[in-house]
Amino acid sequence: MSGTDEQEAWLAAHDAETVETLKAFCRIPSVSTDPAFRDDVRSAAGFVTERLTEAGMPVVELVETGGHPCIFAEWITDPAKPTILIYGHYDVQPPDPVDKWQSPPFEPEIRDDRLYARGASDDKGSLLIPLVVTRAFRETAGSPPLNLKFLIEGEEESGSPHFAPTVAAMAERLACDVAVSADGAMWRADLPSITVASRGMLAMELTLRGAAKDLHSGRHGGSAPNPIRALAGMLATLHDKAGLVAVSGFLEGATPPDPAIVRAIETVGFDVPGYFDAIGAPHPRPMPDGPALLTRQWLIPTLEFNGISGGYAGAGTKTVIPAEASVKITCRLVAGQSPDIVFDAIRKHLEAVLPTGFAMDLRRHGPGSAAFALDPDLPAMRVTEDILEEIMGTAPLRVAMGATIPIGSVFAEYLGVGTIFFSFSTSDEDYHAPNEFYRLSNLRDGQVAWARLFDRLAR
Amino acid sequence: MSGTDEQEAWLAAHDAETVETLKAFCRIPSVSTDPAFRDDVRSAAGFVTERLTEAGMPVVELVETGGHPCIFAEWITDPAKPTILIYGHYDVQPPDPVDKWQSPPFEPEIRDDRLYARGASDDKGSLLIPLVVTRAFRETAGSPPLNLKFLIEGEEESGSPHFAPTVAAMAERLACDVAVSADGAMWRADLPSITVASRGMLAMELTLRGAAKDLHSGRHGGSAPNPIRALAGMLATLHDKAGLVAVSGFLEGATPPDPAIVRAIETVGFDVPGYFDAIGAPHPRPMPDGPALLTRQWLIPTLEFNGISGGYAGAGTKTVIPAEASVKITCRLVAGQSPDIVFDAIRKHLEAVLPTGFAMDLRRHGPGSAAFALDPDLPAMRVTEDILEEIMGTAPLRVAMGATIPIGSVFAEYLGVGTIFFSFSTSDEDYHAPNEFYRLSNLRDGQVAWARLFDRLAR
Repeated sequence: MSGTDEQEAWLAAHDAETVETLKAFCRIPSVSTDPAFRDDVRSAAGFVTERLTEAGMPVVELVETGGHPCIFAEWITDPAKPTILIYGHYDVQPPDPVDKWQSPPFEPEIRDDRLYARGASDDKGSLLIPLVVTRAFRETAGSPPLNLKFLIEGEEESGSPHFAPTVAAMAERLACDVAVSADGAMWRADLPSITVASRGMLAMELTLRGAAKDLHSGRHGGSAPNPIRALAGMLATLHDKAGLVAVSGFLEGATPPDPAIVRAIETVGFDVPGYFDAIGAPHPRPMPDGPALLTRQWLIPTLEFNGISGGYAGAGTKTVIPAEASVKITCRLVAGQSPDIVFDAIRKHLEAVLPTGFAMDLRRHGPGSAAFALDPDLPAMRVTEDILEEIMGTAPLRVAMGATIPIGSVFAEYLGVGTIFFSFSTSDEDYHAPNEFYRLSNLRDGQVAWARLFDRLAR
Repeated sequence: MSGTDEQEAWLAAHDAETVETLKAFCRIPSVSTDPAFRDDVRSAAGFVTERLTEAGMPVVELVETGGHPCIFAEWITDPAKPTILIYGHYDVQPPDPVDKWQSPPFEPEIRDDRLYARGASDDKGSLLIPLVVTRAFRETAGSPPLNLKFLIEGEEESGSPHFAPTVAAMAERLACDVAVSADGAMWRADLPSITVASRGMLAMELTLRGAAKDLHSGRHGGSAPNPIRALAGMLATLHDKAGLVAVSGFLEGATPPDPAIVRAIETVGFDVPGYFDAIGAPHPRPMPDGPALLTRQWLIPTLEFNGISGGYAGAGTKTVIPAEASVKITCRLVAGQSPDIVFDAIRKHLEAVLPTGFAMDLRRHGPGSAAFALDPDLPAMRVTEDILEEIMGTAPLRVAMGATIPIGSVFAEYLGVGTIFFSFSTSDEDYHAPNEFYRLSNLRDGQVAWARLFDRLAR
């Protein structure tokens, strides 16, 4: 059934070495968001370039971005064959709170066939897989069966501020047939899944001003404008009773979700009381059903308040009518929604509900990003699904995620290609929390899967 | 015309010293609402006891209250003469936002014959006046012409939680013919006025909790409870479209306003566009008429939001759904309203509008205080009005005020006496805002006025 027996045998024979390599990778504290780890981040980039060179990639370059560097690598084995662009990141989340770790975050330890270390799951384990698989092809067949490009970044955990400009600047060199991401995560450990959609993002801040300065709430109460009251009244108009966004024009252009995702939502078996317990929130009454809640999380655009402030925030009481009050807002967008159109719709809505006697300032934070949705008919998807079914014994679900994965949109915009998320991390591996781990079974399964992916996409 | 020439001469000769004393008083950051300033509050109490001793008061005592101390002082010159009880407070509002101050809030600076400092107007300047006047009588006549008692508190800016119990416990020692308050404020700098009614006060804080910790707004947006959204929705139900409190039971027991004050409202000539210009607020459309606005400010109970907080308050954006959000609320009450009944009405309202999936905590800050209304026929009022007319050249108006001066109700209830507000602060002195100041002309006029008040009430 498989044309990759030789590579799979090589990978199995080198399993212990691969685990040691992953441990060495995880020992480098490449925390991108904290300037104190700047040199370590660069060490991790060096570690990746060594592995790419070892894997036989003829072109391996460190790409300066203005922040932490990207690594570009290329192996054109035959211009007539397909080319894939592999994405991953070598930076990690901060390890805080360090005292909550059972073993130190940068001293990898194996317990129960799991490797515990910061970055093991996100994304060093899953990133190592295509590097090792490339090496396996070199050692067994002399070269991979198709053309490979790699673009590995070092700022994914700090918002990827230089990634889109880097892709835009390198668009010609990055030309490919399809992108494959080693980052992302399967929804559950016991059920294979492929992320085919993620929501876009739009951020803004609304400030209301009444008086020019804070006023005594006794002397002026009842006669002076209170911007907290006005703000609360305005915010209360932005959602309907069901919690859906109630802004005219907000949904303009939104396209219906991929029916496969809707089916997945019915199939995946979301434990709603367990969800509220996990986040530590009171159970709502009535309890929503699983598909309804997951639809809210994956497929429905949101308008969330991320922070609100105004007036006295210290201990006790202060009898003041504040001069201003502000709220920070982010929207998650679905396919077809334009950040520009959504922003205009929200601005018009807020202007319409602004009470008299107040001045309003609505500031947009950045351009935002459109949602990502993979073409459901992309041929590479069928190949990917077949491989996952072979290895894991179950057909994978096509799932969405509520959070924004900018690379899907970036590759679509600048390279005109789809991105397949082919990560072997799972979402329970505590990758933004203490005691992050990576299942070594996933490390082994992932190598077989990527070897077969190279082979099938080459055909 | 005046029997206080000697004292007035002494006071004029010591003007520079008095200004220096006020500056020293204002250097003590006696912020009663914030525990970080606990020691400073006690320093300010010490400063007051020293001034009372220096003024010749034979009895000066620090009275422990369970919170910040009161200071009691007594000078019985002749049991046959009238006794007055003088009230003031030595604590101040928090200085926030400190960066809006032109000179640091606790480094007093004189500009244009005004002393700029937190507490200069509320109430350190006006409180210092009777202390200095007592000293002037001691230095010139050996003793004041009547019996004096002082009760100075340190919790006026944090709701006076221990004041009523202290007055109740000391009622016998505080026995007097009339109380005179050095706290309060004249309505306008160019028009003398005496406050004969003030609104009561009730403070509370509402906190809503959703999840146990902050959540990622991408992954959880749409499915997790957002307490800012819930809070905004709840707050929006507390007022009607006209801005009046829309809480069932809120007005229970409220009595109609004194017709004399309603007539004063028609007389005083309130310049509405000028009011909005003075506070620096955009003009509402349509512009309310003067009597209507002043009625709102003086005679209608309020529910004002003094501060709101929750989630991310730093620069830029953070994609978080906060675990909780809070709002600080104060109500101003009119005659007949009970703080207990009002609190219960608000609690019931909030419980009724609390959305499912959130936990609510409503905490009351202190007992609150009922509204105050002076007997219009009090003889000491006529004396007070005469003195103000002599010094300021115009007969004073009898006015109400929106702010709360709980002492009027407390002294009426426990001592059975009326309270005359004889403050030389004016309401434009930014006393709960940055750049609070005190007019040094008021400091001088006030000393003359208090010297004459001692003299006339002694007859």
